[in-house]
Amino acid sequence: MSFRAPVAEMAFTIRHVAGLDRAIAEGLHGDLTPDLAEAILEEAGRFASDVVAPLNQVGDRQGAVLEDGTVTMPPGFREAYRTWSEAGWNALPGPVEYGGQGLPLLLNAPCVEMWNAASMSFGLGPLLTAGGVEALAKHGSESLRERYLAKLVSGEWTATMNLTEPQAGSDLSGLRTRAEPAGDGSYRIRGEKIFITWGEHDLTDNIVHLVLARIEGAPAGTKGISLFVVPKVLPDGSRNDLRCAGLEHKLGIHGSPTCTMVYGEKGGAVGWLVGEANRGLACMFTMMNNARLCVGLQGVGIAERAYQQALSYARERRQGRAGAAASGMSPIIEHPDVQRMLLTMKAMTGAARGICYLTAEALDRAHRAPDEAERRAALDRASLLTPVAKAFSTDIGIEVASLGIQVHGGMGYVEETGAAQHLRDARIAAIYEGTNGIQAIDLVTRKLPLQDGAVVRGQIAAMRGIAERVLREASPAFGFTAPRLREAIGSLDTATSFLLRALRSNRPEEALAGATPYLRLFGLAQGGAALAQAALAAHAAASGGDTDPAHPARIALARFFAENLATAARGLEQTVTAGAGYLQDAPLALAG
Amino acid sequence: MSFRAPVAEMAFTIRHVAGLDRAIAEGLHGDLTPDLAEAILEEAGRFASDVVAPLNQVGDRQGAVLEDGTVTMPPGFREAYRTWSEAGWNALPGPVEYGGQGLPLLLNAPCVEMWNAASMSFGLGPLLTAGGVEALAKHGSESLRERYLAKLVSGEWTATMNLTEPQAGSDLSGLRTRAEPAGDGSYRIRGEKIFITWGEHDLTDNIVHLVLARIEGAPAGTKGISLFVVPKVLPDGSRNDLRCAGLEHKLGIHGSPTCTMVYGEKGGAVGWLVGEANRGLACMFTMMNNARLCVGLQGVGIAERAYQQALSYARERRQGRAGAAASGMSPIIEHPDVQRMLLTMKAMTGAARGICYLTAEALDRAHRAPDEAERRAALDRASLLTPVAKAFSTDIGIEVASLGIQVHGGMGYVEETGAAQHLRDARIAAIYEGTNGIQAIDLVTRKLPLQDGAVVRGQIAAMRGIAERVLREASPAFGFTAPRLREAIGSLDTATSFLLRALRSNRPEEALAGATPYLRLFGLAQGGAALAQAALAAHAAASGGDTDPAHPARIALARFFAENLATAARGLEQTVTAGAGYLQDAPLALAG
Repeated sequence: MSFRAPVAEMAFTIRHVAGLDRAIAEGLHGDLTPDLAEAILEEAGRFASDVVAPLNQVGDRQGAVLEDGTVTMPPGFREAYRTWSEAGWNALPGPVEYGGQGLPLLLNAPCVEMWNAASMSFGLGPLLTAGGVEALAKHGSESLRERYLAKLVSGEWTATMNLTEPQAGSDLSGLRTRAEPAGDGSYRIRGEKIFITWGEHDLTDNIVHLVLARIEGAPAGTKGISLFVVPKVLPDGSRNDLRCAGLEHKLGIHGSPTCTMVYGEKGGAVGWLVGEANRGLACMFTMMNNARLCVGLQGVGIAERAYQQALSYARERRQGRAGAAASGMSPIIEHPDVQRMLLTMKAMTGAARGICYLTAEALDRAHRAPDEAERRAALDRASLLTPVAKAFSTDIGIEVASLGIQVHGGMGYVEETGAAQHLRDARIAAIYEGTNGIQAIDLVTRKLPLQDGAVVRGQIAAMRGIAERVLREASPAFGFTAPRLREAIGSLDTATSFLLRALRSNRPEEALAGATPYLRLFGLAQGGAALAQAALAAHAAASGGDTDPAHPARIALARFFAENLATAARGLEQTVTAGAGYLQDAPLALAG
Repeated sequence: MSFRAPVAEMAFTIRHVAGLDRAIAEGLHGDLTPDLAEAILEEAGRFASDVVAPLNQVGDRQGAVLEDGTVTMPPGFREAYRTWSEAGWNALPGPVEYGGQGLPLLLNAPCVEMWNAASMSFGLGPLLTAGGVEALAKHGSESLRERYLAKLVSGEWTATMNLTEPQAGSDLSGLRTRAEPAGDGSYRIRGEKIFITWGEHDLTDNIVHLVLARIEGAPAGTKGISLFVVPKVLPDGSRNDLRCAGLEHKLGIHGSPTCTMVYGEKGGAVGWLVGEANRGLACMFTMMNNARLCVGLQGVGIAERAYQQALSYARERRQGRAGAAASGMSPIIEHPDVQRMLLTMKAMTGAARGICYLTAEALDRAHRAPDEAERRAALDRASLLTPVAKAFSTDIGIEVASLGIQVHGGMGYVEETGAAQHLRDARIAAIYEGTNGIQAIDLVTRKLPLQDGAVVRGQIAAMRGIAERVLREASPAFGFTAPRLREAIGSLDTATSFLLRALRSNRPEEALAGATPYLRLFGLAQGGAALAQAALAAHAAASGGDTDPAHPARIALARFFAENLATAARGLEQTVTAGAGYLQDAPLALAG
């Protein structure tokens, strides 16, 4: 099944929802113009469709294979990766001083979405490399930066993140990998890491592992963890003391090798400290916003691809008569229930895309705004939105992929069709880079209290402004968009107040209990607002004489979301404000 | 991962929610006593745990294999199936005159749930056999009944249902398989069928295919379809002209062979008409209620198994500190978000179980009540509940299995753990035996109008009665169970009125548009009522001095459901009553 990147929708969203034009006008993005941005997305879209997308199914079927410590990627991955990185796509958001193009994350976000829609197994590796670039650029010594950054920025080498050990997953305090000073400024690393994405592969000549480990004598818990660079190939050309000891047999993303990595079996892998000793987690945290956003974009990408495939099938497949007037069997897209599924898929995808791009814009502004107060405000906004972008988008990625199977009927359950792969692939994104439950806890316990609640209040006020604009527009095409959106935002407001009160009154269990439904509520309100903002821009364009059929489609989609999906908000509010009562009874209920 | 059938919960539900004791007291079930019923469930539970459950993972990994037209089932299936049928489990609900035990469906329902929880691939075959028994018992000629029923009732042979062809899935009007009278009372069948479950296997000496086909000269469309018995082995011991031409490579249920069946390549497969010519669909419809209920029970079974596995993992796995007082890492079951997931899994499973057992009870009463008016009322109730039992249970089967993966974190994505298989297996149940979209349309367009709406009104009144009893109980343990349940039932009532008005005013598009959210709403209200009914019975028992910890667990679970899950009702009501506005814009929104 072919994939076509929704470039026009992406461009419209980065410009009219996430404010690219405004940022360019403010001078935040150098020479970039809206036209150039669109041209880059067009080019990326062609690459994603023509080169990457055809790898998706073979990647799933053949998968990455481990033999004698060597991992062979699926057929075509090596050539595609080389062409991709040589064309400069890996370097797009990279720092200019190391050969990157320094383009905004807001432009990279749709690209990340495309690569992952085309093939999540392919798109996943470069996300890790980007994390490595960020960590080294910010915390690496000059010599480490000199040695590794240019090659990671270009994609000539890839990077990995080595956090998880069997006993240390979401909670890294129990981490056991050891680092011993060698006396020459380097360390010897010994330990075993699991779930290491792209830990070993044959796409590049070197792999730069970023490894969390404890220096001998460091404090217990998370305050004794340091970050190290441990390359597969040492600067002198020799192989480091590390190997891939196994690949996981996973539900999906078969083309992405998930490795068990063993360090230091022959005395110790050579590594160099990144940043300060015992500050490894802080170094990891600096790259977390962008990495989590990128996983959210994977959710959007898979959702988009599943939607396109279901839409295409629904247009071809004929079953039943839609309406009394139909003669013969109708394409199933004409059946109301299939329309509901397709609209739900498209609306959820668009809502999540809006949230992710808004997050990217906030991250750009946090780095690029001239005024420090503005940078700080933008960083707060990015911090608030990031867990929503990650968790809401990956949750809907699963839901949309599952609906995609349903649209296909029995054919959706047959692997050959490809619809099932999307569900299998999508399922991981709600787990890795911090499970969605952890995102919800982060949102509620760390992000809501930012600026004593002023950050979330400001975000809610911005959503309200959009709903008010829809109301003032008073166009019948919007249907009940304004009232439903206002209700959803009102529910978010009420639930926010409840949680802030709980946190201030030292009742954290109330916040923890309501975290997951609260995040969903936030996503529905914010996603509905983003779709409404796009609809308002579309309405203005159409009123100005632009006859692009995408404009009425945007209005109809915002309306569908508000009337059919945002309606879940009130129930989520009730659930959140019901509080932690259920926790007292939980042991009882689960024991029985 | 071991599975233990929740026999106590099943017995409690059939007795105190679905009213087994009352039916026994009324004399509907002959010699059956509540004690005997529990003993049978205990025995079935042991069989499911000890014999069937160990086949689940090997069934998934090795799958059914086709070679030279022969299908070999996964290791262990043949022995387990023989032991199972010889122990009489296949015959449990079968008609006494053909060697069945004639036990009520309400007793068979928990058994079906167990077999499918233990291994859905194993449990699926006998469901088809049960459908064959039903069709032949009701519509078969005496000679067909004599020839096939005893062996199908005992399970010595299995049956299949051959409906689907490539161009005829949900809509059978385009069916092309042909039947030609041979002049001796038999027919020659020619055609190709796809998605035939257990179409070929090595568990039994014969397979009795029930095949839909058109007799030469029959009317076009669904009014020209007839039903035939086409056995793999003919009465004279020779092989019939039919073969398995291929197996589907599916997302899940790998142990269940999904066959492409070719009939009549060598001149024509010998078949005999079942029921009247051109009345084949009517014959199929007679067995639809029970078959759909059984698929709903598959959803419940998979959900139960996924829950047990997640619960067990959450008790063992330690990560993070739960609460300030915790020392060292806590079992993740102590974290509020994990508790929410587990409670959601358990509550959704219990709700769906309640709905399914209530449906089984109505089916029993429809066949066994002495009074014809009562039988008719019960059949109406069963007809109303069946699509909810099928679709709500299979939807939550998927959701619960997906949550089960999430509880496991990264380990859930690794196939070895077994959590992912549940999601892969569960996914089909929302598709086959009528997609869940078709169930929703059936509920809204055929079942709501039953007795001009009196059937659904009666069901809603029964739910209200339960909510009122909870209110009168005024026990603090129930928390907000009563008000939340009343709100959910109120939403169902409002949405029902809206849909009935739309149907009466000849606006079927409003009904079709809201069908899926309406079915979900029905499931939440009915499921919440069923859990509350169990909680009331538990409360009564506990008040009477029964210290079984399952009683407070039932109350806590009903409360969790009402406060946290039934809260979605109001949003679903809004969605339903928003009507079909979105349909007008759908082509627009999907085109753009």
